[in-house]
Amino acid sequence: MKINLKHKGELFIISAPSGSGKSTLIKLLLEQVENLEYSISYTTREPRKGEVNGKDYFFVSEKEFEKMIESNEFIEYARVFDKFYYGTAKKQVYSRIEQGKDVIMDIDVQGAYQIMEKGNLDFTSIFIIPPSIEELKKRLIDRGRDSMEEIEKRLITAKNEIKYLRYFDYVVVNDILEEALSSLKSIIFSERHKVKRLVNEEEIYKHFAEE
Amino acid sequence: MKINLKHKGELFIISAPSGSGKSTLIKLLLEQVENLEYSISYTTREPRKGEVNGKDYFFVSEKEFEKMIESNEFIEYARVFDKFYYGTAKKQVYSRIEQGKDVIMDIDVQGAYQIMEKGNLDFTSIFIIPPSIEELKKRLIDRGRDSMEEIEKRLITAKNEIKYLRYFDYVVVNDILEEALSSLKSIIFSERHKVKRLVNEEEIYKHFAEE
Repeated sequence: MKINLKHKGELFIISAPSGSGKSTLIKLLLEQVENLEYSISYTTREPRKGEVNGKDYFFVSEKEFEKMIESNEFIEYARVFDKFYYGTAKKQVYSRIEQGKDVIMDIDVQGAYQIMEKGNLDFTSIFIIPPSIEELKKRLIDRGRDSMEEIEKRLITAKNEIKYLRYFDYVVVNDILEEALSSLKSIIFSERHKVKRLVNEEEIYKHFAEE
Repeated sequence: MKINLKHKGELFIISAPSGSGKSTLIKLLLEQVENLEYSISYTTREPRKGEVNGKDYFFVSEKEFEKMIESNEFIEYARVFDKFYYGTAKKQVYSRIEQGKDVIMDIDVQGAYQIMEKGNLDFTSIFIIPPSIEELKKRLIDRGRDSMEEIEKRLITAKNEIKYLRYFDYVVVNDILEEALSSLKSIIFSERHKVKRLVNEEEIYKHFAEE
């Protein structure tokens, strides 16, 4: 009989200034990496074109969101730009981790910092940064989603958000997409080889002792 | 200008029961991974066929080795099977780390444990294990280097060595060579993305603040 490593699921918090290509990278990771799932966030903002409820987000009313806050259903939540709520529900994460699945939480920098400060959650955090503000500006313009006023606002936010790098476990520069993707995969795969994440350590010792 | 991550070199201690395929894996890693170098060990055993002094090992006399011990030139050393000395010289490791190069130290389990116990060295440890003792036996026989008596002795040693798994940071099962190689690469690459290993963190903040 050959031994296999069995590891505890890991929660990956992935954060980035908007326009860093985070969503594209996460999409590719989910397509290409086995046993990796996405934690769908709750939000009070309106769905954008093409966004599907229960797939991209759970779109809920402010009243519903605040009710969930009251009943302590969120791992974290934040109000972004003093406007919309975004939050991660406990039920989206914990059961999968127990099943040995890795979970990606796509979260804004403010939300990520909030989780880190609380310090009651076991996770690995990854910060994706653009190669420069100039490049970020170019991408936001190319994306054609935001007005120039909105883009300038995002760039100021991005500049502030970069300072949060120090709080993250890992950093990936998204210059060439394929390289950034490969780096993210390395980070996820390496976690699966951590001895402290093994759930079948005793089984391994037994396996070799009995032969 | 685009930002690049600059990281501090990391020392990787790779250990395994003999016959686990460690040497082959390390050879492939050194061929395929940039900025990764090998720390050449000192030993008092005779060179095996094809082994080159200053490439595979520094082959020295017992007297020379003991002189190096006295002058505190080793990070670690051990006497294996009460017979030969093996040791890692400080000069093989520290200067490369400072240059930002990752260094692989190929070391027996006893030597690895000795380093861990001392606790005065910064490193990442990787334990390579065979998929089973049966498979290990098969590989040792196929290798055709040791007598059956020697093989049985190695198997007993291997069984004992597996217990040291708990002291390592990472574990890789060498069942399919290509997969084990890929796992090792992930571990090495992921280290290069650790925020705490960055040497140009301040430069990154400055880069984004000034734009």
